[in-house]
Amino acid sequence: MTASPLQVGIVGGTGYTGVELLRMLVRHPQVDLRCITSRGSEGMRVTDLFPSLRGALDLAFQTPDPQLLAACDVVFFATPHGVAMEMAPLLLAHGVRVIDLSADFRLRDPQEWARWYGMTHGCPELLREAVYGLPEMRRHEIEAARLVAAPGCYPTAVQLGLLPLLKSRCITTANVIADCKSGVSGAGRGAKVEMLLAEAADSFKAYAAGGHRHLPEIRQGLSDMAGGPVDVVFVPHLLPMIRGIHATLYATLKEDCLQDLQWLYESYYADEPFVDVMPQGSHPETRSVRGANLCRIAVHRLPDSDKVVVLAIIDNLVKGAAGQAIQCMNIMFGIPEQTGLDKVGLVP
Amino acid sequence: MTASPLQVGIVGGTGYTGVELLRMLVRHPQVDLRCITSRGSEGMRVTDLFPSLRGALDLAFQTPDPQLLAACDVVFFATPHGVAMEMAPLLLAHGVRVIDLSADFRLRDPQEWARWYGMTHGCPELLREAVYGLPEMRRHEIEAARLVAAPGCYPTAVQLGLLPLLKSRCITTANVIADCKSGVSGAGRGAKVEMLLAEAADSFKAYAAGGHRHLPEIRQGLSDMAGGPVDVVFVPHLLPMIRGIHATLYATLKEDCLQDLQWLYESYYADEPFVDVMPQGSHPETRSVRGANLCRIAVHRLPDSDKVVVLAIIDNLVKGAAGQAIQCMNIMFGIPEQTGLDKVGLVP
Amino acid sequence: MTASPLQVGIVGGTGYTGVELLRMLVRHPQVDLRCITSRGSEGMRVTDLFPSLRGALDLAFQTPDPQLLAACDVVFFATPHGVAMEMAPLLLAHGVRVIDLSADFRLRDPQEWARWYGMTHGCPELLREAVYGLPEMRRHEIEAARLVAAPGCYPTAVQLGLLPLLKSRCITTANVIADCKSGVSGAGRGAKVEMLLAEAADSFKAYAAGGHRHLPEIRQGLSDMAGGPVDVVFVPHLLPMIRGIHATLYATLKEDCLQDLQWLYESYYADEPFVDVMPQGSHPETRSVRGANLCRIAVHRLPDSDKVVVLAIIDNLVKGAAGQAIQCMNIMFGIPEQTGLDKVGLVP
Amino acid sequence: MTASPLQVGIVGGTGYTGVELLRMLVRHPQVDLRCITSRGSEGMRVTDLFPSLRGALDLAFQTPDPQLLAACDVVFFATPHGVAMEMAPLLLAHGVRVIDLSADFRLRDPQEWARWYGMTHGCPELLREAVYGLPEMRRHEIEAARLVAAPGCYPTAVQLGLLPLLKSRCITTANVIADCKSGVSGAGRGAKVEMLLAEAADSFKAYAAGGHRHLPEIRQGLSDMAGGPVDVVFVPHLLPMIRGIHATLYATLKEDCLQDLQWLYESYYADEPFVDVMPQGSHPETRSVRGANLCRIAVHRLPDSDKVVVLAIIDNLVKGAAGQAIQCMNIMFGIPEQTGLDKVGLVP
Repeated sequence: MTASPLQVGIVGGTGYTGVELLRMLVRHPQVDLRCITSRGSEGMRVTDLFPSLRGALDLAFQTPDPQLLAACDVVFFATPHGVAMEMAPLLLAHGVRVIDLSADFRLRDPQEWARWYGMTHGCPELLREAVYGLPEMRRHEIEAARLVAAPGCYPTAVQLGLLPLLKSRCITTANVIADCKSGVSGAGRGAKVEMLLAEAADSFKAYAAGGHRHLPEIRQGLSDMAGGPVDVVFVPHLLPMIRGIHATLYATLKEDCLQDLQWLYESYYADEPFVDVMPQGSHPETRSVRGANLCRIAVHRLPDSDKVVVLAIIDNLVKGAAGQAIQCMNIMFGIPEQTGLDKVGLVP
Repeated sequence: MTASPLQVGIVGGTGYTGVELLRMLVRHPQVDLRCITSRGSEGMRVTDLFPSLRGALDLAFQTPDPQLLAACDVVFFATPHGVAMEMAPLLLAHGVRVIDLSADFRLRDPQEWARWYGMTHGCPELLREAVYGLPEMRRHEIEAARLVAAPGCYPTAVQLGLLPLLKSRCITTANVIADCKSGVSGAGRGAKVEMLLAEAADSFKAYAAGGHRHLPEIRQGLSDMAGGPVDVVFVPHLLPMIRGIHATLYATLKEDCLQDLQWLYESYYADEPFVDVMPQGSHPETRSVRGANLCRIAVHRLPDSDKVVVLAIIDNLVKGAAGQAIQCMNIMFGIPEQTGLDKVGLVP
Repeated sequence: MTASPLQVGIVGGTGYTGVELLRMLVRHPQVDLRCITSRGSEGMRVTDLFPSLRGALDLAFQTPDPQLLAACDVVFFATPHGVAMEMAPLLLAHGVRVIDLSADFRLRDPQEWARWYGMTHGCPELLREAVYGLPEMRRHEIEAARLVAAPGCYPTAVQLGLLPLLKSRCITTANVIADCKSGVSGAGRGAKVEMLLAEAADSFKAYAAGGHRHLPEIRQGLSDMAGGPVDVVFVPHLLPMIRGIHATLYATLKEDCLQDLQWLYESYYADEPFVDVMPQGSHPETRSVRGANLCRIAVHRLPDSDKVVVLAIIDNLVKGAAGQAIQCMNIMFGIPEQTGLDKVGLVP
Repeated sequence: MTASPLQVGIVGGTGYTGVELLRMLVRHPQVDLRCITSRGSEGMRVTDLFPSLRGALDLAFQTPDPQLLAACDVVFFATPHGVAMEMAPLLLAHGVRVIDLSADFRLRDPQEWARWYGMTHGCPELLREAVYGLPEMRRHEIEAARLVAAPGCYPTAVQLGLLPLLKSRCITTANVIADCKSGVSGAGRGAKVEMLLAEAADSFKAYAAGGHRHLPEIRQGLSDMAGGPVDVVFVPHLLPMIRGIHATLYATLKEDCLQDLQWLYESYYADEPFVDVMPQGSHPETRSVRGANLCRIAVHRLPDSDKVVVLAIIDNLVKGAAGQAIQCMNIMFGIPEQTGLDKVGLVP
């Protein structure tokens, strides 16, 4: 454990990922929050934008200043894609460790990245170095990483849900279906008509059925697990609620699969502090992890069928974003992994 | 009743008041919907913006064209304030009758209007002619009106809730308190961060406690009823739901008031098709008028107290906007008042 | 068309299906609502239970009285399962036509029924006669039917979503997945802890992943369409909202399928008044049919894949229950099919 | 501070107040949770009822056992009224300190209690000893108390909102109006039809306008502050959301009141860790204290008026129940008051 608190900076603190990092970092016993940047809100007190933090934080937004950020031990990027890839090289050169919550370093292939994000990648050489920040897959690499790409929210739920099945080679790699549902906070704090309460409440719809930016990230992750290409259909949906992702995952068991799937999941995740395998027959509800850094999973082998259904839930802003990023920070700096992340889900 | 259907135009059809007018007018047996204008969405099919209308309407948005509008019998303005006052004079000159759902013609005093809306009024001479479109107060004037100012949503609930008390001189005109709560659709379809589902859901707050634009309209209306100034405190609040206004109204009964208040309300509104006085001891819920052109009212005389509490609810988009405007149209053209307005509240 | 209005009775009018029947039947121009029964609420005015109907209906709940019901032209059962099968034979014997919104007559196989509903079927001989009330499949049989089994809400969405694909033999009959999401009104008006707002709001979960009562109904319907067994996985989920079902349907196209799927759907449903095929690339939202008797469908053929995704939405209480039952009534009595069912979805 | 952790028992752990106590106590560094009782759920693991607590708690519900409870340092009652008054005397006799979250000890007058709760009080002699657990009013008495009556949720918001005005004698004691709105969790976890999501969502209503059980508690508290009777009108309303209370308080300033009200509030609450006076002109939103033990207050002196409007918000389950009870526990046992209560509101 570090003797003195970590000096922490946040670039882009005005969105939901930003305020969620703040909520957790202000109570993290090993963290000294040094600066929060935002071009648009420079000079504004953070608590004027987020009154929920009144009494817990006494900082104002600053314009991103390389000097200041370079003096931090670690900098989180909670920015839209395209920002971290511009600033990360300089910070790394100053010995700062970087945890990027945006999509900039999630895909290893710069061509694939360019195709989905509509711009050329700014530092493709770092794509090779960046470690994908899913601790349940890459804990040892994260320990040593200078640059961590925190996973997307949907990919976190889908990958944790399928990891034991793919690692154990129980399922066919064709025919994997990920029907995913997310609360609206996943769409960010930008003012969009379709995210108004009067538009999105009391209604439900799919979106991007033809292809969503998280698809290549999911494909890459599942293929890593399977040791070969996985054919996955991914359809995201918008839930009339604030937080939470529910992934309903369908796969076909190989003919000779005699595995006790409940045992497979329980043993696979036995030592994972932030994955909770529910008892046989369970249906986890998203609220059970509201505000908590947890993925809850239930596995259902269907009767008289070769199909398995996995239900995986997370809070998209916590295990799907800020919480997982802090988990990575703890790992990177040798801080006990649960430090600052022991909150219980807010129910009701 | 008119022999041939009314030719109807709508200026500004892309907001919530617009789509609500459309929902009701496409099923109005005496209406021929002729044109819908929108500068921003010119050429777009209405059903591409509002798929709920697919199969019920086959029109595209047009740029506002004076020629076309002048050929209508009646034109509704569902625009932000400042638009109707520019276009109304020309339409009136062509013999078109105008029903304005914006705030342009609601206040009789142009100075007061300018103070609250931050601009000089464009045709103050019409302020004198315009009839305030609250049928329960001004049915006969509406019959003959060329220009009707449809009331605001809060003012509709507050005025209908207090009308019998003020007309009968039962209460003191000081100390009237209107604690009002509205669903978010009252804020319109504009993209504002504070109206996002992730901001406004599962939360509640007051706003504009220091003064809201509906205050002078409420004051003017109540004073008309009382025959003298009424001192009213009005605090609006934002409900985490889509439709509905609930006005909780507090007043002090005069010392000698021996009125049976339940009887007062029931007899006052006995012939009103769109005001429903609930049985003694009731608490009307906003959903009971969801989608319906109704104001439901309950009156509570508090035990051992000189206070009366009135509960009045409407659907802000119907009796608080589009429905009431159509009610005015029916009155203006001698169509039976309930035509096209007989929908039952959508429960659950 | 019948010359005089139909005499209509409702058995079990205190649930959500009941109040929804009432909402639509009180405005149906060919209907004379004769009686509404409820054992538990005998003597209570209907409008005391459902104030939204005040002014539209003047009836009290009665104890089910065979005499009274036998005088009706048609009787709707909006009861839990097990009731209609006891009372239907007598009513049919008196020449009354029966539309059952419960599950009593949906499955043709009495053993299968007994297995899922945990009791022996009370009149298995009527299972053969009962017509499954999905007009898009069985319009001609409904015309002549004495006894109609109105489909379940999930089965309506799933079957309408897959009908063109199965009829045209485009997809393999293995590997069909129906990931379905429903608003809470589908669970009825009974007081259950898990359906409290404080439990079900702002959260999402699957349920009955191991087997739901609508599964055999879906299997039976899809197999009828395919002319042979269809292997379907069905997982229902609970949405934090009131009304609406969204079925996300996944199927595998046969290798030689060269069909233009958009054209297939549009032509298949071209003459159906209550099925709306959305333009290519659409994602229908449940609110677009809130309160309306419509199924909206979008079909997505995935790029570089043999998979097709169909999105189908209904209002579970309308096209998924009361509306579809009235549609059947119109067909049975030669009333134009859209009569009383022309409501536009309530948006926002 | 105590050297060893407090031994804590909870009677009645299956409701919302119970699970909220658990959520906070499992992370309280000075607490050893010894037992949780529930007659109805005996033997059930707590985490089977509340999966959100999985991994944080390993206890099962027990039948209330006087022996076991008597071995605790402090026992919380999270029961319906009528239970604590039966069990408290025995526990007190064994030297256990008692914090009752029910209504049993909130009113000092047993006749008044009997009138509102419909039963004779079981131990009126303890009513005199019980300390009302509003730390901002009675911190020193709480320090020494054996028996604390944790305030009701509405009374907490109303009293904290009016305390500075009444103590400073700025307002008249007639004409105080408390228009209060609460999320549904305030109604508890019992299965009631009117609290179903399908009933209470997307709607709003007042209830108990003629008199609510919290009225005598509010009257008693305000009168204590004012040093004489306060005439208060209290109307509660049900919000379509889970947590949060918003009190909108109206009062009339005395003619000679020259006070700077903003300064009055800020100075009055300057040393209170759990009351946050917002900047002038603010409108606190309930979500800013979601899950947090805080009351946020804004005071508005209306222009050209003798009226003051105070907006006060709390989370009904935290500062309005479990959090405030733990705050009292900390005070009673000399633990720093903020221990275990430093959570930041969950936003968004």
